[in-house]
Amino acid sequence: MSPNPYNIGLDRTPANHQPLTPLGFLERAASVFPAHVAIVHGGLRRSYADFYSRARQLASALAGQGMGRGDTVSVMLANTPAMLECHYGVPMCGAVLHSINTRLDAGTIAFQLDHAMAKIVITDREFAPLMAEALALAKVTPLVIQYDDPEYSGPGAMAGAEDYDAFVASGDPDFAWLMPEDEWDAISINYTSGTTGDPKGVVSHHRGAYLLAQGNALTTSMAKHSVYLWTLPMFHCNGWCFPWTLSAIIGTHVCLRQVRAAPIWRALAEEGVTHLCGAPIVMSLIESAPEDEKRHLDRRVQFFTAAAPPPETLLASMDAAGFDVTHLYGLTETYGPAVVNEWHGDWSALPGAEQARLKARQGVRYLPLENLTVLDPDTMKPVPADGETIGEVMFRGNVVMKGYFRNPEATQKALADGWFHSGDLGVLHPDGYIQLKDRSKDIIISGGENISSIEVEEALYRHPAVAVAAVVAMPHATWGETPCAFVELNYGQVTDEITLHNWCREHLASYKVPRKFVFEAIPRTSTGKIQKYVLRQRASELSV
Amino acid sequence: MSPNPYNIGLDRTPANHQPLTPLGFLERAASVFPAHVAIVHGGLRRSYADFYSRARQLASALAGQGMGRGDTVSVMLANTPAMLECHYGVPMCGAVLHSINTRLDAGTIAFQLDHAMAKIVITDREFAPLMAEALALAKVTPLVIQYDDPEYSGPGAMAGAEDYDAFVASGDPDFAWLMPEDEWDAISINYTSGTTGDPKGVVSHHRGAYLLAQGNALTTSMAKHSVYLWTLPMFHCNGWCFPWTLSAIIGTHVCLRQVRAAPIWRALAEEGVTHLCGAPIVMSLIESAPEDEKRHLDRRVQFFTAAAPPPETLLASMDAAGFDVTHLYGLTETYGPAVVNEWHGDWSALPGAEQARLKARQGVRYLPLENLTVLDPDTMKPVPADGETIGEVMFRGNVVMKGYFRNPEATQKALADGWFHSGDLGVLHPDGYIQLKDRSKDIIISGGENISSIEVEEALYRHPAVAVAAVVAMPHATWGETPCAFVELNYGQVTDEITLHNWCREHLASYKVPRKFVFEAIPRTSTGKIQKYVLRQRASELSV
Repeated sequence: MSPNPYNIGLDRTPANHQPLTPLGFLERAASVFPAHVAIVHGGLRRSYADFYSRARQLASALAGQGMGRGDTVSVMLANTPAMLECHYGVPMCGAVLHSINTRLDAGTIAFQLDHAMAKIVITDREFAPLMAEALALAKVTPLVIQYDDPEYSGPGAMAGAEDYDAFVASGDPDFAWLMPEDEWDAISINYTSGTTGDPKGVVSHHRGAYLLAQGNALTTSMAKHSVYLWTLPMFHCNGWCFPWTLSAIIGTHVCLRQVRAAPIWRALAEEGVTHLCGAPIVMSLIESAPEDEKRHLDRRVQFFTAAAPPPETLLASMDAAGFDVTHLYGLTETYGPAVVNEWHGDWSALPGAEQARLKARQGVRYLPLENLTVLDPDTMKPVPADGETIGEVMFRGNVVMKGYFRNPEATQKALADGWFHSGDLGVLHPDGYIQLKDRSKDIIISGGENISSIEVEEALYRHPAVAVAAVVAMPHATWGETPCAFVELNYGQVTDEITLHNWCREHLASYKVPRKFVFEAIPRTSTGKIQKYVLRQRASELSV
Repeated sequence: MSPNPYNIGLDRTPANHQPLTPLGFLERAASVFPAHVAIVHGGLRRSYADFYSRARQLASALAGQGMGRGDTVSVMLANTPAMLECHYGVPMCGAVLHSINTRLDAGTIAFQLDHAMAKIVITDREFAPLMAEALALAKVTPLVIQYDDPEYSGPGAMAGAEDYDAFVASGDPDFAWLMPEDEWDAISINYTSGTTGDPKGVVSHHRGAYLLAQGNALTTSMAKHSVYLWTLPMFHCNGWCFPWTLSAIIGTHVCLRQVRAAPIWRALAEEGVTHLCGAPIVMSLIESAPEDEKRHLDRRVQFFTAAAPPPETLLASMDAAGFDVTHLYGLTETYGPAVVNEWHGDWSALPGAEQARLKARQGVRYLPLENLTVLDPDTMKPVPADGETIGEVMFRGNVVMKGYFRNPEATQKALADGWFHSGDLGVLHPDGYIQLKDRSKDIIISGGENISSIEVEEALYRHPAVAVAAVVAMPHATWGETPCAFVELNYGQVTDEITLHNWCREHLASYKVPRKFVFEAIPRTSTGKIQKYVLRQRASELSV
């Protein structure tokens, strides 16, 4: 075979090949729209010129402390301007951004700091006592920088920490920031809150961050100058890459230290917010706010939700309040959302229950994800697209992580056979939409029948009184396991075990109906995930 | 220095690294929105499922003829469904798409076919006689396939050619199409209509096509399900990558064989067109249509224009007719538009003349272009950002061509020193926007003073009677050269040499005022570019 003539004398050069990186989005935004408001935080309105300038100062100051390619800078920050600056300034000196979940315990934080080999820590003053506790447990001895957010007036401080603003001010605003040497270079590390074993450090690269940041805008039709409200924690998969998306579309970040209804409604009404993200619990919070906190909106607002399928009643009330809700799905290993419930225009004419059923499905691949399917993990063959046969959800493409840090075994296992094995169980519908059915551990096996705890939860969510439902296996002498339901009620609603039992009988096969209903607060992880292993323990006690 | 820990055990695998290619956009669109209308052409409404299926059949049939990686398939087609199918089907078998400008002469076409080593030619029946003439001159002897567009009823045919639809029908709709082996693989070749010397074959790669296709949507805020009207020839830089953009946003192509006012207005009104592209001449055509052909539009339509700055009067009348006009700029070497006149909201409050002045500037880099500037080509130093000092416009980034086919010398020259040297001369404004001033050849040097022919043309365009103005150098005994203006008038307008002379005296330094005004049809190249070298010849005759 003769050589491909289109490969002769046509090699990559610096003129036609540059590493993909989202850092250039900020440079462009600052250059083209220097005066546009990039960040709103309380009374602060920071322009793109200042945002870019401060990010470069931060990068310069970090470089002055010896930070460079492959060094880890760990941050424990709320959704503040400092956190946004770190998303640019840390990689701009070549370092890797390690965002720590602020709800973790000191021991887990210490593990992360050691495992990530943190050289510098930037902490919000509020979390300084927790960070001090973690550092006392950790082996690493990073330089500590403390951010004193003017919007925070509560307690907390760490003796001897450097002041963040003084640190930034010491940097050069014209610092010649470093492009990645290769788009495969790491931009961030985020530890998964695994239910078992040590947390794993998910390493993301510049290429994937660039592509998912654009994918967010493309997949969700975010127009130029959109205004984004930070109800989603930025420590969660780098805020699903939205810190970078906003620079691409020259939008405005509206920061929020705490997810409470009043400031959310105020931002929606006064800052012209067009987009926000969060779990269904954030929608509940918005929707169940006291009437005097709610505000009239003069435009439709886009709400992107993930973590759990949005219940029908919530969808209806959000629609009435002026929100279009889009269901997304992904994992830390996929940079945040890599799956979208693409909505078909004609579905909006269907009855509410049918719409909710369609919207409960996680959906189809994001544009920058090359492949998504449900495979039998043993044979690696696709399951039939029948909406019933359960397999493992698998991802392939450019928005799948680089791997787990310092964990080649877990990396190889997760990326075996050309697919990222998500560990999530789901089905493939005839129209190609995937739907999660469970994590492997959450399958309830009763009398030899598999029961999807999610299916039972969905039935419960359809009951108007139910705010949150979590179903786990309860040991049973006859059947091995039976479902046990933990329920939190909507504000002002009452119900009882008999009512919910009858409800489930109407909506589920009888073997799937929970034998027990428990009305109590449901334990959650720091990222808001329901701690099913705690519930399984509790159910086990209740079954005795 | 210790090795970067983030590069250990974290290599690319098929699970997390795939070649970027726009071909996957169509696969996704067909999978998620199979029934959505992808292509409208006369009475035809083709769904995404059928579009994808036919593209695979075409790829399969081409593969059956031995086409594979590095083979060239040449097409001479109007803006028809077949042309869209070729943008996917040809690269889906690994081959490279060579689109031929239908306005070229047979000799030039023959040169291209030979230089590109065409193995298969697909021609519209209308252009079959021209293609037959070209093939008689060419050395290559490709298989010829003829497309008989139902929307074309005029003359033309080639004896012995295979029928396009039968050829497609012979292919397998489930053909396992080929991903590029590397995203640097060629996807297309387009010959520039150079004013001197042989045409150069600009080779584009999958990576750049993917990024510019997305860049179009991101830069211009194209929402999901946008409807795009094909007033821009697809043989021109692959229709600026819009054949691929539309699949990314699951939009609808409205085909158009001929750019005439009546079908454009009909499509705008009846097909819900949201976006279209073209040179200012297309806007003139739309705007100067007889009133009974114009239609009321119930929405704003986005018009992307390039090739010449849009004149103020045209901007005003387009605005009144319901169009938002965005000025783009690029070259075949940059996949089409890679520069955008990013509009600032507050500019819309300025007087019309000031808006036109701002909009005449080519602008700033597209999101997927990493760098754009104006350099002194001798020193490769940036010119001062004063809006006056002329230098050469230079591009750097992932939407710069792979190089010129079988022309390593021209490739190296064009991509020297880490920049693509565009050959276009321009200035850099204090706000970072670039503005073209001339091609090197179009500078008029009068009495030692440089005169930008574009500046003189802009002055003429501001006169209400002027539809098209082209200014070139005319030899002059005293001054060496003086400007000579060729002018086409707007429909129904009259003016004369004295009037325009006085107009220019009011708006230009006296040495820039044309010594001669010629009122006659202005010759254009097949891509609509004014043939200044013909005008220079004509001016030289007139000066005798």
